[in-house]
Amino acid sequence: MRKGQITKEHIIRESAALFNTKGYTGASLSEIIDRSGVRKGGIYNHFENKDEIALAAFDYSVSRILDFLSKALENTTSSKERLLAICDVYVDIIESHTLEGGCPILNTAIESDDGHPLLKERAQQAMKVFIGRLKVIVDSGINNKEFRNNINSEQVCTYIIAVIEGGVMLSKLFDDSKYIRHCVSTVQQYIDGQMLNV
Amino acid sequence: MRKGQITKEHIIRESAALFNTKGYTGASLSEIIDRSGVRKGGIYNHFENKDEIALAAFDYSVSRILDFLSKALENTTSSKERLLAICDVYVDIIESHTLEGGCPILNTAIESDDGHPLLKERAQQAMKVFIGRLKVIVDSGINNKEFRNNINSEQVCTYIIAVIEGGVMLSKLFDDSKYIRHCVSTVQQYIDGQMLNV
Repeated sequence: MRKGQITKEHIIRESAALFNTKGYTGASLSEIIDRSGVRKGGIYNHFENKDEIALAAFDYSVSRILDFLSKALENTTSSKERLLAICDVYVDIIESHTLEGGCPILNTAIESDDGHPLLKERAQQAMKVFIGRLKVIVDSGINNKEFRNNINSEQVCTYIIAVIEGGVMLSKLFDDSKYIRHCVSTVQQYIDGQMLNV
Repeated sequence: MRKGQITKEHIIRESAALFNTKGYTGASLSEIIDRSGVRKGGIYNHFENKDEIALAAFDYSVSRILDFLSKALENTTSSKERLLAICDVYVDIIESHTLEGGCPILNTAIESDDGHPLLKERAQQAMKVFIGRLKVIVDSGINNKEFRNNINSEQVCTYIIAVIEGGVMLSKLFDDSKYIRHCVSTVQQYIDGQMLNV
């Protein structure tokens, strides 16, 4: 990798954590400079403006979440296990701080929904990818008869995401993982009661 | 009401909508001046700084939500009806834009959790009040045997809040109320299946 590319990726990585904790409006260029240790001129070698850094940083944070999701699915055998493994990624974000600032899609959705169209579009795209990842699991569970065939898989997926993201919000607000843990156990109850073919 | 008090409340009301859409970091003093039509000097007659306006604006937005919740409970007869009436307040926020910017507790929780201790504390207090409002309903449902007596009412309430707030986030992100509507119908299913004494 060329030196310029290494610097660029370093700036993205460091500013991703900044944006994910302080928000896109809250994180300033001077904080990006401080945290990355790269001078203003160096940053402008790679990015036009703060917005361009913000978008690259968001994409990087989302790619990390998607990596966590893929890794979580390793060694799972059933669709139920896969859905719960995805929920556990969010327990880890809270309990093991695997992603500084929590879920970037949630944070960016809330910040951008009323006033930052470019970021909002990016958050929509990322959320669609997240919904899609869950939908593949639910649809495969329906196809192999693990789940009932009268399930509306998109509705189920967005419900599970709402519960998880709501649980993440509460756990981060109160600095207590009991909220996300209880939400995950309610999702498990939901899968057992409303989705599994018995 | 004295003129000064009228002006102060006007500033709070207008800045509440600004803060709830653009965030506490995102809304600037000059936007508060523009939107309220009150000059800088007039604003500083009533508030020390932007933080003081932000806290007053947050309290005002939360008081509006709490008013909606109280009003929603009028003419309800069962605890199940009351819980669903509270959910419907959030459907109205999305569909009828009863509160510009959506749920202020959700917005402020997400913005403050990693970096604004004063606002975070305020969001925690507001969320505790919200949880408390639901808990009164659930506890009364347990006491009058409408709900099962093995329910952990605090867990149930935070789960319902997680679903609602997650649904609000998705509906605002995609500008589509189907997410909050489906979340509410899943809460209804949950009440019927997991809470009601049958």
